Amino acid sequence: MPTLCKPSIRVPEYVVTMEDTLEFAEKVHAGKPQLPLALRLIQNTGVRKRHIVQPIEEALLHPGFEERNRLYESESKKRCPEVIEEALANAAVTVRDIDAIIYVSCTGFMMPSLTAWLINSMGFRYDTRQIPIAQLGCAAGGAAINRAQEFCTAHPESNVLIVSCELCSLCYQPGDDNVGALLSDGLFGDAVGAAVVRGNGGVGVALERNSSYLIPGTEDWISYAVRATGFHFQLDRRVPGTMEPLAPVLRELAASHGWDVRNLGFYIIHAGGPRILDDLAKFLDVDREMFRFSWATLTEYGNIASAVVLDALRRLFDEDRVTPGDTGVIAGFGPGITAEMAVGRWTVDAPAEMERAQLDELTSSLQ
Amino acid sequence: MPTLCKPSIRVPEYVVTMEDTLEFAEKVHAGKPQLPLALRLIQNTGVRKRHIVQPIEEALLHPGFEERNRLYESESKKRCPEVIEEALANAAVTVRDIDAIIYVSCTGFMMPSLTAWLINSMGFRYDTRQIPIAQLGCAAGGAAINRAQEFCTAHPESNVLIVSCELCSLCYQPGDDNVGALLSDGLFGDAVGAAVVRGNGGVGVALERNSSYLIPGTEDWISYAVRATGFHFQLDRRVPGTMEPLAPVLRELAASHGWDVRNLGFYIIHAGGPRILDDLAKFLDVDREMFRFSWATLTEYGNIASAVVLDALRRLFDEDRVTPGDTGVIAGFGPGITAEMAVGRWTVDAPAEMERAQLDELTSSLQ
Repeated sequence: MPTLCKPSIRVPEYVVTMEDTLEFAEKVHAGKPQLPLALRLIQNTGVRKRHIVQPIEEALLHPGFEERNRLYESESKKRCPEVIEEALANAAVTVRDIDAIIYVSCTGFMMPSLTAWLINSMGFRYDTRQIPIAQLGCAAGGAAINRAQEFCTAHPESNVLIVSCELCSLCYQPGDDNVGALLSDGLFGDAVGAAVVRGNGGVGVALERNSSYLIPGTEDWISYAVRATGFHFQLDRRVPGTMEPLAPVLRELAASHGWDVRNLGFYIIHAGGPRILDDLAKFLDVDREMFRFSWATLTEYGNIASAVVLDALRRLFDEDRVTPGDTGVIAGFGPGITAEMAVGRWTVDAPAEMERAQLDELTSSLQ
Repeated sequence: MPTLCKPSIRVPEYVVTMEDTLEFAEKVHAGKPQLPLALRLIQNTGVRKRHIVQPIEEALLHPGFEERNRLYESESKKRCPEVIEEALANAAVTVRDIDAIIYVSCTGFMMPSLTAWLINSMGFRYDTRQIPIAQLGCAAGGAAINRAQEFCTAHPESNVLIVSCELCSLCYQPGDDNVGALLSDGLFGDAVGAAVVRGNGGVGVALERNSSYLIPGTEDWISYAVRATGFHFQLDRRVPGTMEPLAPVLRELAASHGWDVRNLGFYIIHAGGPRILDDLAKFLDVDREMFRFSWATLTEYGNIASAVVLDALRRLFDEDRVTPGDTGVIAGFGPGITAEMAVGRWTVDAPAEMERAQLDELTSSLQ
């Protein structure tokens, strides 16, 4: 059974607190009618701080699409390798063990994608499959996990590396002041995440079933306008209300697997915003506390797009309370409106379990 | 065994002959030092005509990246559905039978990708997986076939729709006059292609094994510069020479499957340009005539990027000389430099074969 191992996550060194965001909004929208709305939207995000790749003063400028994309390229090259190294170590595999790289990122565009550079510079095998996905936005984290599961099923014994590089601050558009833009200005943060799906062995979530769902007629609710100034994020007012139609889909996925979505051991949910998390807990009839990993991501890093599910999962590992056989769900939401979902069970591979048992035995014999 | 069924291809209504291209080059580069080179490059492409989505006079203008992308969206929405309908009919499946759509296109950018619109407007199921790939360029046709094979292997009985929408003329950059730009101005054409990979049954290529290869250290040989004016195609002079390192990889793929690459029944090769096809035949020690489908695509449509392999395969079907059990190879080449390759065998599913046998019997009994 393909197993999603412990993700690695890094956030950049430049911190923007909610107070900073409010202060900058006061300046940027000074004397404009949208100021009170902007401030209220920022406060309602619940994002206490975010991390971005450059000082806020520079992030607020727009040096042009070409320069932005150059920055995306240099920053992604600077930041991805160490996150990848850690994800490989977490999964106890090396670069040579990787058979495919799924690279998801919607905040910059390169052709070839970063996968070619990663293979050339980090020592991956030259026959590593490259699967770059740029157009699934925040749902791409869930999609990457699901495509990795399929790859490992189709090629038994293979290992897939997932890389999520989301430098959302490079999509800030100073000229946009619609409600979607104002909201996103206070919501999104930068992060790089990576995780390995092992075809065999490993500690983590054994991926048992996946599914996808498009909410009918919502293709323009989350979208990019592609302009000379780059990607302009467009968000419809109705997006925060999308958990009502998506909750039944998640319930159905669990049910088709013989599980009750109300009684799972863990929930790794895309932290699109506070209303998304609140509503989904409500409609699934799940205790709000069960989404604590996603709430922590949102509060500490903001919405880091496709990297949210990886970060929330990392927190599940760090909490270290999950036990073998615990059931869980992973769900990414993004443009389409698309949900990419998976159900799986916490697993500890036999050799690792044996080692732990031996260690326990050794430890007690020494006491 | 997942089976790649007969592709459907459409090229747009505006025809540009080689004579037209030479004539326009004479105007565009009039009095400039690059004129003789431009004319020679165009003549050497071997492209007799191409088809584009608007009259050549309009295609030569640059109305801005935003307008270009708007055109990409409206043209893709106008042209994809009928090609998809035909591909579904070719595979004897309906929209409701499709479990995933792999949409490949490097000549426009939308988020969400066209998959969301296709699902909403054509009646695909809302749980159809969306796999949009924008960053593999001309290799994406081969990649789509390989990812479809894996999806069908991981989800037995499922069907995957591949859509390739390449409107290369929308990436023409009037200001570019480096050798790569001059060459590509005479080489690329527009086309929309689609094909279904059936998890079970179907007539076509049973996909038995796939592989990928990145030529070391060539990530900047084919690339896009991303600017306010859109995607600028950059081509290194060394690209036409890449079949020397790729031929052994194709030979190895066939050998790992127990086959001799010199003696296959069919070859579906990306028609990157005349040198690519000539060199690969030479290095594989295969008769030039064996690449006749790719030559026909190149001559009649130009390099239609990721759609080439679909069009070449469609010509194999149309020729109707292939017989069950014939072995073959499919190879797409693109940025990275990446090769996406597959080997498979011509197959006719049992019910269809029975029908044919009955028909033969009936025919002979009537003679």
